[in-house]
Amino acid sequence: MKKFVYAFGGGKADGDGKMKDVLGGKGSGLAEMSRAGVPVPPGFTISTEVCNIYFQNNNSIPKEIEQEIAQALDQLEKQNGKKLGDPANPLLLSVRSGAKFSMPGMMNTILNLGLNDQTVEGLAKNSANPRFAYDCYRRFIQMFGEVALDIDMKKFDHIFDARKKKVKAKLDTDLNAHDLKSIIADYKTLVQKKTGKPFPQDARQQLAMSRDAVFRSWWGKNAANYRRMEKIPDDLGTAANVQTMVFGNLGDDSGTGVGFTRDPATGEKVFWGEFLLNAQGEDVVAGIRTPHPIADLESIMPDAYRQLRQITSNLEKHYRDMQDFEFTIEHGKLYMLQTRNGKRTGAAALRVAVEMVKEGLIEKREAILRVAPNQLDQLLHPLFDQASLKSLTKIANGIDASPGAAVGRAVFTAEEAVVRAADGPVILVRKETTPDDIHGMEVAEGVLTAVGGKSSHAAVVARGMGLPCVVGAGALHIDEHNRHFTVKVGLKDVVVKEGDWISFDGTTADVYLGQAKTKDPDPNSPMFVEFMKWADVFRGRFGVRANADIPRDAKAARAFGAEGIGLCRTEHMFFASDRIPHMQAMILAEDEKTRSKALQKLLPMQRKDFAGLFEAMNGYPVIIRTLDPPLHEFLPKRENLMVDLARLPHATTKEKKEMSESYGIPAGELKKRLPLLLKRVEDLHEFNPMLGFRGCRLGIVHPEITEMQARAIFEAAVQVAKKGIKVIPEVMIPLVGFKQELAMQKEIVERVANEVLSKAGMKNLKYMIGTMIEIPRGAETADQVAQVAQFFSFGTNDLTQTTLGMSRDDYTKFSKKYEELKIFKADPFQTIDQEGVGKLIELAVKLGRATNPKLEIGICGEHGGDPSSVEFCYRVGMDYVSCSPYRVPIARLAAAQAALSSDKSELMRTA
Amino acid sequence: MKKFVYAFGGGKADGDGKMKDVLGGKGSGLAEMSRAGVPVPPGFTISTEVCNIYFQNNNSIPKEIEQEIAQALDQLEKQNGKKLGDPANPLLLSVRSGAKFSMPGMMNTILNLGLNDQTVEGLAKNSANPRFAYDCYRRFIQMFGEVALDIDMKKFDHIFDARKKKVKAKLDTDLNAHDLKSIIADYKTLVQKKTGKPFPQDARQQLAMSRDAVFRSWWGKNAANYRRMEKIPDDLGTAANVQTMVFGNLGDDSGTGVGFTRDPATGEKVFWGEFLLNAQGEDVVAGIRTPHPIADLESIMPDAYRQLRQITSNLEKHYRDMQDFEFTIEHGKLYMLQTRNGKRTGAAALRVAVEMVKEGLIEKREAILRVAPNQLDQLLHPLFDQASLKSLTKIANGIDASPGAAVGRAVFTAEEAVVRAADGPVILVRKETTPDDIHGMEVAEGVLTAVGGKSSHAAVVARGMGLPCVVGAGALHIDEHNRHFTVKVGLKDVVVKEGDWISFDGTTADVYLGQAKTKDPDPNSPMFVEFMKWADVFRGRFGVRANADIPRDAKAARAFGAEGIGLCRTEHMFFASDRIPHMQAMILAEDEKTRSKALQKLLPMQRKDFAGLFEAMNGYPVIIRTLDPPLHEFLPKRENLMVDLARLPHATTKEKKEMSESYGIPAGELKKRLPLLLKRVEDLHEFNPMLGFRGCRLGIVHPEITEMQARAIFEAAVQVAKKGIKVIPEVMIPLVGFKQELAMQKEIVERVANEVLSKAGMKNLKYMIGTMIEIPRGAETADQVAQVAQFFSFGTNDLTQTTLGMSRDDYTKFSKKYEELKIFKADPFQTIDQEGVGKLIELAVKLGRATNPKLEIGICGEHGGDPSSVEFCYRVGMDYVSCSPYRVPIARLAAAQAALSSDKSELMRTA
Repeated sequence: MKKFVYAFGGGKADGDGKMKDVLGGKGSGLAEMSRAGVPVPPGFTISTEVCNIYFQNNNSIPKEIEQEIAQALDQLEKQNGKKLGDPANPLLLSVRSGAKFSMPGMMNTILNLGLNDQTVEGLAKNSANPRFAYDCYRRFIQMFGEVALDIDMKKFDHIFDARKKKVKAKLDTDLNAHDLKSIIADYKTLVQKKTGKPFPQDARQQLAMSRDAVFRSWWGKNAANYRRMEKIPDDLGTAANVQTMVFGNLGDDSGTGVGFTRDPATGEKVFWGEFLLNAQGEDVVAGIRTPHPIADLESIMPDAYRQLRQITSNLEKHYRDMQDFEFTIEHGKLYMLQTRNGKRTGAAALRVAVEMVKEGLIEKREAILRVAPNQLDQLLHPLFDQASLKSLTKIANGIDASPGAAVGRAVFTAEEAVVRAADGPVILVRKETTPDDIHGMEVAEGVLTAVGGKSSHAAVVARGMGLPCVVGAGALHIDEHNRHFTVKVGLKDVVVKEGDWISFDGTTADVYLGQAKTKDPDPNSPMFVEFMKWADVFRGRFGVRANADIPRDAKAARAFGAEGIGLCRTEHMFFASDRIPHMQAMILAEDEKTRSKALQKLLPMQRKDFAGLFEAMNGYPVIIRTLDPPLHEFLPKRENLMVDLARLPHATTKEKKEMSESYGIPAGELKKRLPLLLKRVEDLHEFNPMLGFRGCRLGIVHPEITEMQARAIFEAAVQVAKKGIKVIPEVMIPLVGFKQELAMQKEIVERVANEVLSKAGMKNLKYMIGTMIEIPRGAETADQVAQVAQFFSFGTNDLTQTTLGMSRDDYTKFSKKYEELKIFKADPFQTIDQEGVGKLIELAVKLGRATNPKLEIGICGEHGGDPSSVEFCYRVGMDYVSCSPYRVPIARLAAAQAALSSDKSELMRTA
Repeated sequence: MKKFVYAFGGGKADGDGKMKDVLGGKGSGLAEMSRAGVPVPPGFTISTEVCNIYFQNNNSIPKEIEQEIAQALDQLEKQNGKKLGDPANPLLLSVRSGAKFSMPGMMNTILNLGLNDQTVEGLAKNSANPRFAYDCYRRFIQMFGEVALDIDMKKFDHIFDARKKKVKAKLDTDLNAHDLKSIIADYKTLVQKKTGKPFPQDARQQLAMSRDAVFRSWWGKNAANYRRMEKIPDDLGTAANVQTMVFGNLGDDSGTGVGFTRDPATGEKVFWGEFLLNAQGEDVVAGIRTPHPIADLESIMPDAYRQLRQITSNLEKHYRDMQDFEFTIEHGKLYMLQTRNGKRTGAAALRVAVEMVKEGLIEKREAILRVAPNQLDQLLHPLFDQASLKSLTKIANGIDASPGAAVGRAVFTAEEAVVRAADGPVILVRKETTPDDIHGMEVAEGVLTAVGGKSSHAAVVARGMGLPCVVGAGALHIDEHNRHFTVKVGLKDVVVKEGDWISFDGTTADVYLGQAKTKDPDPNSPMFVEFMKWADVFRGRFGVRANADIPRDAKAARAFGAEGIGLCRTEHMFFASDRIPHMQAMILAEDEKTRSKALQKLLPMQRKDFAGLFEAMNGYPVIIRTLDPPLHEFLPKRENLMVDLARLPHATTKEKKEMSESYGIPAGELKKRLPLLLKRVEDLHEFNPMLGFRGCRLGIVHPEITEMQARAIFEAAVQVAKKGIKVIPEVMIPLVGFKQELAMQKEIVERVANEVLSKAGMKNLKYMIGTMIEIPRGAETADQVAQVAQFFSFGTNDLTQTTLGMSRDDYTKFSKKYEELKIFKADPFQTIDQEGVGKLIELAVKLGRATNPKLEIGICGEHGGDPSSVEFCYRVGMDYVSCSPYRVPIARLAAAQAALSSDKSELMRTA
């Protein structure tokens, strides 16, 4: 017969520490502690399976299981020598939730179960402490009322506070037994009124109802949300732990506390915790009384303290990880109520892992697996001083696009950002950003947008720059023209004007009014460096590159350990103010000759950029992508032109001057030239630019663009190589769907390369020509494409857009709903959609390698910095991932973990 | 040893009629005729392979092949008893191209080869006709000069015309031998001047040069373009046919002509052709002299006529198809120079095929394979009276989007179309159309746009309506605001204003100024009906449905033989002027209640539409797609709002009135409400609407929309079924990429269906719920989707857009270049891209059927009416195709041909 109920206590247990699936984290911890002889109040765990059965069985427990529970209760009564509901010698119980994965505070707990109007008297008598007994009873009614009877917590608080006021009690402990009896009477009246029934007096009924309430809390709103956030499956269910009560509130020889075997904020090896004398568990966290540091316990109850240190120290050794524990001391006797691996900050995770290796507690490979790659993010970006946040008003919550704390004065245009940044920090606030905004982003402390998701332009570029960024803060109504935004705070509209201080956190996505304080992390601490070295050993030959467009980013990337540039977006170089006029001249050219002339002006500028990248990457490969975005991105916006043309007849001199500046057309010529400019912009206008005239399609129709770029690349390579710096250019043709596209562009690049290298006497300089696989057809015909390509780089942003038919700039209109309904398992623009996009990637890797076994394969989409996507890339056999510079350490760690989780141990260097 | 040269003539031949690959059409025809004893001037064919070798061998012929040619020439000289270049008795030759597929007029021919300053005298003497000899010589120099020496034809014409002028000759035949000798002298001077060398006198050199020129003409510009258009592979090459000259210009007992065994325009079984006395071949087609009807030959040369009729009649029987032949009569003796299956119009193809079956010449299955499906198009649309076109000015050529001839007055807005259509035919001229224009299209004779391709909105909707349409006529500069367009004619700008007559041909895509005459075809002729019946028998169970949105189209579809509706786009119903306000109210609703109220208004309207479709399709299935397009399509355009808002402060009363009407906002409220409307439009604005908030994503976020539509469908079904009409509703959920999307929408539809059908007591009414497969992820996860879907319909428009990463509204910016460079084998929005899109379709069919063997599978994209795509759909095992009503007969025929070409004969009913 299947077992559903597992007893523990008294030095033995039915279950053990490995049974988290069945017993949940708390239950298995209690079982393991019992087996290890740790003093644990006896009890039993009702398995997680029963939770699922409860829901499947129309919110009730089948008879057989009820019987098994009754038997366990009988046993427990025997063990304690007390009986549940026995007025003379009542057994009191706690019922607590406990799922496989810790969900702190998300589910329910009921203490002091078994008290009723009779047993409370027995407890009063036996404990010789009536006040204690009535306090337990009123606590029980309150918790049971909230949890099992769904009565609003505030109603109980109201009664309690009214009584305190009436007797002028300052602290809860100022209330005497009489007060508490009065409160109990009022509580019971409240229950009768709210449920239409008296407060249940039958202790076994109390137990059944509490157990069911604990199960139901699995689907509580907070718990369900938490699971979605933490990607915990819904079908795990929670266990219910029924345990003999021990009391920390029996006087000054009693107490209760929580602690960690190391500091969970820093990881330092100090005994860390808090306790309260004469208190029950929830008092420590409730904040009503200020708890003592755990060190104080040593002088108050030295024996209990010594025992606690010994037990927790042993538990840490036993579990080989930092422990988060709860304890209660009843009349001087220590009981352990819980132990589990403690949650910790990124810094702590790193320090604990490294120090445990030094202590010989764990191996390096375990240390690597102990730190979640995303936790490193905290070590690489400035953080808020949490205290300083408290004085600020939170005005919005958006989407966490790029981590880090940002503080600055609000500016609404890139131009203003440049102007004001000279005088102090600014935050660029835009409805959405476009490539025009790059120069504003470069000087800003952070970027805040009202629309767009994690893969919007703002998000992608900000992450590339390591710039904190929050996007999609829909509560902000931004009026870029009048340079302010409006946001509802409570019931009031607050207007934030240019120059006002704002702060935001790119990790929590919270936006504040005012100027918060920040602190800098130290990413180059020796411990971090050592840890990353271990990771690199396990990672083996699997490479990590960075996406970097300018030399500054390339240098940052090297500092973070990037082994090359996986993507340089050449177009970002064209938006600088000294270049955009030539770019526009090139686009507006009516014939090839005029276009070539404009391109000639751009050539030396691009050459200089590329030279900077090659220098920064000395000896590491640099993948340069030829022009990708639609040409209209470089021209004024169509709608702005239309509006200005409509305004022109009645425009003031000042307005005309503004137009003149923004279009680079003398005011006197606006009337003539604005319509012509609009006409050209109309010609280039696209309904779906993402699927339009872009990528290699530009180079096919205008080969002279590819030719100019190839020339800039190879002239730069020659120039840098002549300085004795090793240069490895890899030219990448974007948006290839047909082998012929790549073949035609390759022909141009090869011709120019031969020409330039021959002239320089450097025909031996090695380079590669490859392509991005970023549309489904490219992946499907990868065998053909690989006949021409020397490398593939998966552009998973576009591949996700096309495979899912979702624009990353538009999908936020429905993506929240899709996450809520679990249509999305994860945001597909953050984590590779393995069933859809992943299938195409696997196919393309297989087809590509079948044609060309030497094909170099990597990824340069945003997913390259996402740990679970890195694991996927490793698994399907890519050679490297490329991500934004600030995510390089994350990718290095994720790659090491992927390697450790796979069987490909032959790839590892000796550790 | 491999054979490269094939002799023919004198009742025998090395090759035969089956060797078109090797000998080309002309060569194999000559061989076949020789073998059949038809009088053919002897000669030899240099195989198509030699053409390829010529190009591979650096434009020269290897020695061994030169030797083989020389041997064939020796043989020919012996057979004729004449020698090439022999001044006494010269052999004269023709050299003609001839590829596997006929490419009329695209490649080169040289006649009278072998003449030089000596042999011309021999010819003069032997023929006793010096004028004839000199005429032959001057013709030869001219042709050789143009073809082999690349001298501009006009230079020769200039000399010839100067001479005619000088001697006051009206006709060429007015020139005497002396004149011709003078012309010859001038021609030779021209050759010397242009080539720096004298005109070659060596007859064997003339032959080699002519042969090479014929080969080179394979890559002539016209020939290459023609191959691209007709999808003839480039690597076939042309043969060169070297043949003994016979002369139709030896006096009035000689002549030359061309003819068909049946009328190639109508297919009628009459002996059809033209001839000229005393003339050489090119004179018949050159139009200098008016040829005689072939019937006249009977009285002039009765013997030759009788022999010609006998021979051609036998040839038709031999080839079992209508013959297109050329003949020459030399001194009363008939020679056949060519025979081939004749090109014909759609009407002729149909009539010839049907009548040949009746004559017992071919079987029904052959008849079906004899008519190209696209030829039927000509039978289903009005045609221009070609004569009336000649008086009109051609002003542009666009992209042929929907066939048929259209004549009407130009209008530039849908509203004006409605107003003016009351008074006479109109043509709607738009930069591009949007769903707003539908009511204008409904009343227009045709639609003409300046941008967009074959899959643009205008094209798709027009084909659906059977409305002639030309798109992408980029030469037209349309000013919709001022209601005119400008177009360059020659060097002049012509302005076409509203109300001016224009005409265009949806097949040739030519646009004319003025009012052409049209004539109607008769698609319901008994012959057409009979032919289509045969096709349906071969087609077997493979179905053909139509895409139809309104009852009128559904009725047309039935008339064309559609067996159901494969796609009803419900959104088209919302654009009517009585509905759009409710649609807008629904979209602008701030809460669900207001939205539901607006939906309630739409419900009875949709119900009525669906009832109309069900009635029209009595007993055939009707697939209704739930709302698909992004909601902003139903709102005013963002840029228009922005412009009007900018204009508002200075707007005149008239302008305000216009705005008021166009937005349905009282003039006095514009100032207040226009910004609010713009804000909502901004909220819904998308960067890539194709990849945005549309399809089932709408129904997931706003389930009340799906619910309303489901209710309308099933209430309509009940209503119609109660009349005793059989109703088969199939509800289709668009844009599914995740199984859960379909499952959630299906739940709504099923719930409403159960409710409505139960209430009506019609729980037995059969219906299906399925999905469109139109994004790659849907195809890749088709096994999962098929767990929920009862049918799949491939939306190949969107699937092509996403798989290729190409927007059908934008790809025309580069598609012409892509076709030119042969990156596209065919327009992927017209013919399924089998390597990319096709692979996904095959995968989805396989995965879908693996999960659900009963899955009904069809296609409803534009490709459903394209013959080669129909063949593909048949091959991968779909159940049906669905296309616009006017393409249903084409799809029926294409399906029949697919069935005949496949091995799945078990699918056929008995023929």
